[in-house]
Amino acid sequence: MFQKVAILGPGLLGSSLALAIQQKKLAKKIVLWTRRPEIIPQLQEKKIGDSATTQLKEAIQGADFIIFATPIGIMNELAGSCLPFLTKEALITDVGSVKTSVVNALEDIFQDKAYFIGSHPMAGSDKTGFEHAQATLFEKAACFITPTEQSQAKAQTRVIEFWQKIGCHIKLLPPHEHDYLVATISHLPHLLASLLVNTVVNFNTTDALQWVGGGFRDSTRVALGSPTMWNEILLQNREAVLKSIQNFRQHLNEAERFLQQNQSLQVLLEQGAKFRNHIASN
Amino acid sequence: MFQKVAILGPGLLGSSLALAIQQKKLAKKIVLWTRRPEIIPQLQEKKIGDSATTQLKEAIQGADFIIFATPIGIMNELAGSCLPFLTKEALITDVGSVKTSVVNALEDIFQDKAYFIGSHPMAGSDKTGFEHAQATLFEKAACFITPTEQSQAKAQTRVIEFWQKIGCHIKLLPPHEHDYLVATISHLPHLLASLLVNTVVNFNTTDALQWVGGGFRDSTRVALGSPTMWNEILLQNREAVLKSIQNFRQHLNEAERFLQQNQSLQVLLEQGAKFRNHIASN
Repeated sequence: MFQKVAILGPGLLGSSLALAIQQKKLAKKIVLWTRRPEIIPQLQEKKIGDSATTQLKEAIQGADFIIFATPIGIMNELAGSCLPFLTKEALITDVGSVKTSVVNALEDIFQDKAYFIGSHPMAGSDKTGFEHAQATLFEKAACFITPTEQSQAKAQTRVIEFWQKIGCHIKLLPPHEHDYLVATISHLPHLLASLLVNTVVNFNTTDALQWVGGGFRDSTRVALGSPTMWNEILLQNREAVLKSIQNFRQHLNEAERFLQQNQSLQVLLEQGAKFRNHIASN
Repeated sequence: MFQKVAILGPGLLGSSLALAIQQKKLAKKIVLWTRRPEIIPQLQEKKIGDSATTQLKEAIQGADFIIFATPIGIMNELAGSCLPFLTKEALITDVGSVKTSVVNALEDIFQDKAYFIGSHPMAGSDKTGFEHAQATLFEKAACFITPTEQSQAKAQTRVIEFWQKIGCHIKLLPPHEHDYLVATISHLPHLLASLLVNTVVNFNTTDALQWVGGGFRDSTRVALGSPTMWNEILLQNREAVLKSIQNFRQHLNEAERFLQQNQSLQVLLEQGAKFRNHIASN
């Protein structure tokens, strides 16, 4: 059990984590740090964490576990600002969707001062903000943990145990491999969903969107996600996303050739159905 | 009210239509025609239609409304086989996902013998077969109706009224325009979902599919659909699907350029989120 958990950035993930930690009694005290003073009364009303503050010192001082749940673009600067208040040997993680850039930066900043191990719980939805927080958000979700050669084994064990108690199943991966994997299974699908909506919008039937069915709604649901957050993710992971676009385009070109030559697409459709069916839950 | 409705092909759509017609009391009698004698006891047990037969004569004779709900590839031949048993001035429609080829063929075959108007209700799911039939499948679904210059106004009115009573909202479109529209809003999304699964499968992390989140599951759900049916749809509508692939690739290339140049994708992501949000129901 942690004495004091500091969660920086009580958005959907940070707030849901606070609720899960409370529910599972994993900490004596949870302090939330936010840049937005106006949401503090609402966080308290919803009983998300024990207290919330805009003062980094108040959140970090005495915390033996710190979770970065802010947009990835500000983690670097925020980590630097935490340094003066850090408890020696605090355990630190983050929940960012891109790991190489985040882990490189935060590992450097916290070296010899605290134990940083990157995490990426594959939870979330097109809904954002503490308003949609749920203690159960992480139940049965995959959580990537991305140690490096500099990581301390004991810190790694504690981060693994934390996410397991939260309800996740764990996959250990080096940051670089993680980024290539999620480029393919998460960032590319998001981009394709947005591009598919744009393709329909630019189609010459202006009201085409009125006539879509449930399949299109499912296929494009992720396009509802925060454009600002996803733009940041795609750019931070651009090398891996570009590679996944290349891989995808090969499949697209192959399907196009089949159609041009009036050849059956049965094999690729069968492979799609078969492997989609392997995914545990629909 | 129809005296006798013949539904040819009691799959998901045909069987659901039978249940909806029964529930809404739109016919005195519903006869199902199937090529598969082994399913007849199950259709009867589930009270789908009043009777089921493998004899086309038994289904068609005396029917004042005939609905083709078989795979589109066999409609042509089946329509020819119906001719000897046809009641004069019967109303005929189909539920095929591609209209130009089907309407051209069936309009020709039934000319001066019956009144054919093509339909395409945008209902269905990745589940197929009468086992998943539901009377409510068509509630609030879009239904395209695709008359031509040869269509009789009164027949068109009756087909419109039928689908409205079934619960659909109606969109009238010439077959050719219909095919281009659904290539973009339905056939392309299906193909992309299959290709996305294939891209992940061919990714060098063999167990990548274990780690996908809810977004990926939503984005690829349609890939579970029948490979045989979708192969037929894509090939029958290949000209329009090829055009939609070209349109989509322009958007993909643009996104790739932005990433290569480390430029913001915010505008395209915002457009995706905004227009996706315009779709009535999530």
